[in-house]
Order: sequence, then C-alpha cells, then structure tokens
Amino acid sequence: MKEIPFLCWIRSQSVFDPFAVPVGPGDDMALVRPVTDDLLVTTDQLLDGVHIVLADHGPQAAGRKAMARGLSDVAAMAAEPVAAVATLALPPGFARADAEAVYLGLRAAAEPFDCPLVGGDVGSWGGPLAITVTVFARPGLREPILRSGAKVGDAVCVTGALGGAWRTTRHLTFTPRVAEALALADAFDVHAMIDLSDGLSVDLAHLAEASGLAAELLADALPIHADAKGLEDPLAAALGDGEDYELLFTLSPDQADRLLAIQPLVVPVTRIGTIVEAAAGLTLIGADGRRQPLEPTGWEHQT
Amino acid sequence: MKEIPFLCWIRSQSVFDPFAVPVGPGDDMALVRPVTDDLLVTTDQLLDGVHIVLADHGPQAAGRKAMARGLSDVAAMAAEPVAAVATLALPPGFARADAEAVYLGLRAAAEPFDCPLVGGDVGSWGGPLAITVTVFARPGLREPILRSGAKVGDAVCVTGALGGAWRTTRHLTFTPRVAEALALADAFDVHAMIDLSDGLSVDLAHLAEASGLAAELLADALPIHADAKGLEDPLAAALGDGEDYELLFTLSPDQADRLLAIQPLVVPVTRIGTIVEAAAGLTLIGADGRRQPLEPTGWEHQT
Repeated sequence: MKEIPFLCWIRSQSVFDPFAVPVGPGDDMALVRPVTDDLLVTTDQLLDGVHIVLADHGPQAAGRKAMARGLSDVAAMAAEPVAAVATLALPPGFARADAEAVYLGLRAAAEPFDCPLVGGDVGSWGGPLAITVTVFARPGLREPILRSGAKVGDAVCVTGALGGAWRTTRHLTFTPRVAEALALADAFDVHAMIDLSDGLSVDLAHLAEASGLAAELLADALPIHADAKGLEDPLAAALGDGEDYELLFTLSPDQADRLLAIQPLVVPVTRIGTIVEAAAGLTLIGADGRRQPLEPTGWEHQT
Repeated sequence: MKEIPFLCWIRSQSVFDPFAVPVGPGDDMALVRPVTDDLLVTTDQLLDGVHIVLADHGPQAAGRKAMARGLSDVAAMAAEPVAAVATLALPPGFARADAEAVYLGLRAAAEPFDCPLVGGDVGSWGGPLAITVTVFARPGLREPILRSGAKVGDAVCVTGALGGAWRTTRHLTFTPRVAEALALADAFDVHAMIDLSDGLSVDLAHLAEASGLAAELLADALPIHADAKGLEDPLAAALGDGEDYELLFTLSPDQADRLLAIQPLVVPVTRIGTIVEAAAGLTLIGADGRRQPLEPTGWEHQT
C-alpha cells in the first residue's frame, strides 16, 4: 500500500473547527487550541495477537478499540477529551481498504466524544498490525481524579457488570465511560478512580497500592455480566477477565449511599466493597463470610 | 520479560518538577502544566527493519532515535518541547536490560531539551520492536512556522550538510535542531519550514505543495555531507537519502542575505534555491545551467 495517497485520503476525510484545530494532519505537528494550562495525556497501543485478533475481528474493530481504550483512560480521570493522534504500523500486503477501515474505526470511536483525530503516522513493515493512540484531555469542572486518593472506610463501587468481555464482542464495542465519569465527578466527591481494563482484581490492586491502602470485596455483591454467567466460574471471570472498561471508584459511605439511591447514570452503579488499611491486604469475602486473600488474576500477570 | 516490574523500574527512574508534572507515569493519564492554550503535537513510530535495524544498532540507539525524530518535528515548527510519552511493543524474548536501554535512549534524547517522558505503555507481543513517541510542544515567541507559508521569490535555505546519513551512524546520533529553529524564528521572518527526514527532494516537494508553489534548486549550492562524498553520486545522495534531520526553510531574499552574512547558528546555513510559481514545477539547475525536473527520490516513494 502506498502511504502518501492514503495520507492524502485521510486529509480529505478530516474536517475540523478551524478555531479549535488551526493545523490538522499534513504539517510537522498539529496545532490544537485552546487547551488550558492543564494537559492530561494517555498513550496506548493495540497489538494484533494481544489486544485483538485482526483476522477474526477485522480492521475497523481494531481502530475502534484502539481509540476507545484511550478514551477509557480519559474517563478514569474524569476528564474531557480534547484531541487524539494515532500511528499505524501496517503488515505486509495490508490493503488500502483495510487501512481506511482502521482510520474509520478510530474516528467512529472518537466522534461521539468531540475528540478530533488531528494527526498521525503511517508506516508499512514486516510485523503485524500495531496501532498506538495518544489522547489529550483537559480537566472537567473538578480536578482530575487519581488512583491515589482512596481513604480508609471508602465504599468501592463499579459501573456496569463484569466478566466475559473477551468471550463476546463487548471488548470491541464498549462505550468509554467519559460522560458517566464527568457526571459522577460533578455531583459526588469521588476520591479515587481507575478504568477496568486488566481485570477487577488487578485494577483494584493498582488503585489500592497507589493509595497506600488495601480493600475487601464482597463476592456476592459483584455485578456479574451476562457474558460470564454461563461460564464454569463466573466470579473468577468477573475478577480476572478484564476488558470491561467500566469505572472502579471510591467515595465516602455517605456519598455512596446517596449515589446508589439516585442511580444517576445510564449504567447501574454497584457497591462491591470497602477500602481498608494496607496491612489487612486485599481480601475477598465469600457469601458464607469466609475471608480469603484476593490474588490478582488479570491477564497482565500471566506473562 | 515481566511488564509490571519494568514499569515500576521506570517510575523509580522518573524524577519530575512537581509543578510542571504533577502526575507522571503510574496513573491512567499523566498531568502536565502549564501548557498554554496552544498545544502542538506530533506522533511518530520507529519500526525495526524500517527506521532502524535492531540487531545492528541496538536498543539504546533505537530509543534515542525514536525520541529525536519527534523532537525534530518540534524543531520544524520552531516550537518548545513540553513533554513526551512513548509506547514500546517488545518482541519475543526481549531482555529486561534491553527494555531498560530503550527507555534510557528515549530519555537521553529528551533530556537536553527539558522534555520529560511523562508516561507510556509497554507490551510484549509476537512482532518486532516498535516504538511510538508522541511529543507535545508550545509555540516559542513567534507563531509556529508551517510548511504552507512560503512566498514566490523566497530564498530556500538548509542547515548543515546532506546525504549519506544512513551509511554512517548519523541517522542515530543527530541532534534535533530545536534550539537552532527557535533562534532562527526569533531573529528572522521565516515563512515556511520542514525538517529533512524523507530526503531533500521529497521534503521540498511537501513544503512547496503545502504552499501551493514550486521551487528551483541549484545543484552546485547543495551542501554535501562528508558521509556522501565518497559515493558514486553525492548529489543524488544529498537529494534522496533522507534521515538528515536538518531544517529546510524559506524567507525573503533580504532576510536570507542577512542570515547568511551573520551565520548565527552552531551549524552553517546555506541558500540552495528559490521559491517559484507552482506552474514552473520543481526544478534542479545543474552547474552548467541546464534545468531538469526535480523528481522526489526519498525512500517513502520507493514503496
């Protein structure tokens, strides 16, 4: 595939607000304004054979997922997307139509969030498909919500339901919880937040560790997704499958009670546990009250 | 290689000014301030087998070049680097020490430009080494210099000397012309600028096309690099080898005369041609005065 005509095609597809994006694709750098003094940034790669199987899922789903993963990080900070850039490393013999499909997937995921794709880089090589997406964001009305702000006694909550995402197309078609995170942060004093990409047990460990604390989860309280209900061990799927791209967050029990009573989001919020002192360790409390250590079982720990 | 311990090691290596980088690696996004309302951004990939040969050049050189390429784009806009993020896709069996070398190469290239590496993503996969670097920048004292600002009659100038970079280690060890570009833009009314990555003939075509114009080059005037002087056709090398990462820019003949008389940069500036109307086409004028069409011969046109 020739790169220059493809880049020209991308430019022909790119329509920007000239105030917000004075310089789009085609120069040495893109220019975006106004950004404000606080710039949030995340960069993530989508690798064929790791995060997607190109032969099964197709190029448009690959582009879509690559962008949605970045936007899920924006949600995790309760921030507003500003713009994105992307790079594509295309395998040998990659068709022009497939490259266009990747681009259209990227754009389809970004458009609902007013997040223009302002630049990028395309190269052909001998390796598999790799897509890297970098998303910039600005804080919402509140300061960005970090992983490190949890307090002892906080309620641990999640949006949506967990488990089995990789077994269906949900890991490709999920909606990043950008709007939900902004709504939460506006109306509630959320102490800490992370998006669930690696798996609940791993991501909760990240949040707890960043806060210098631990947590206990109630197995019975976990919202199991329908995708996981037919499996041998739905609880293990909810804890370890990952790819849910829901929000995991903590707030005071009073705030949590109010949130759970109102249920202001388009997706249900469930309280699944409590933040505790670090010395107590991560703990899973079974339906019978039995306590056991909660081991991280997300896929990142399998390598 | 286990990713989590490597990420922990990176965090242990990261020391930031807490005002400029309140949130570095380890959360869902990094937070950088203050950026100003104008955000410039570039993203580029360095692919094993295309931009580097890992087995020959080694991991530290790969990291260094990946970052330096991004900073060369910052130079091309006469902008000031703010921060960078990077992703690494690591091939099977990639050693921890090699991953550390990539990181140290990235950082070594960024440090002289006060450009902190504030975040990233690391993944192992079945493909070759791929590095993507995204650099953010803010305008210097002047507006960013685009490719599209050239005017008929402008002098076409370059920094340094061209050709043969790939035949030596220069394509790995070059210094991005960030300081030189800022100095030029501060003191002279530069109309258009681009960095020479693909090759003079290709990059001049980009600049001319973006400006809706053409150019003529004087073959005799081209500064041939010592790396190219032993080759069969040093002129062709200077026109088509690429990877020089020098600046190509245009300004009025009066401004150019003053610049060439003063030579204010650490690297020589040479006038190599003139911007002309688009209808004239890109032209190379030989030592004998013979005019011939200047064909783009950079490597991007070989695919």
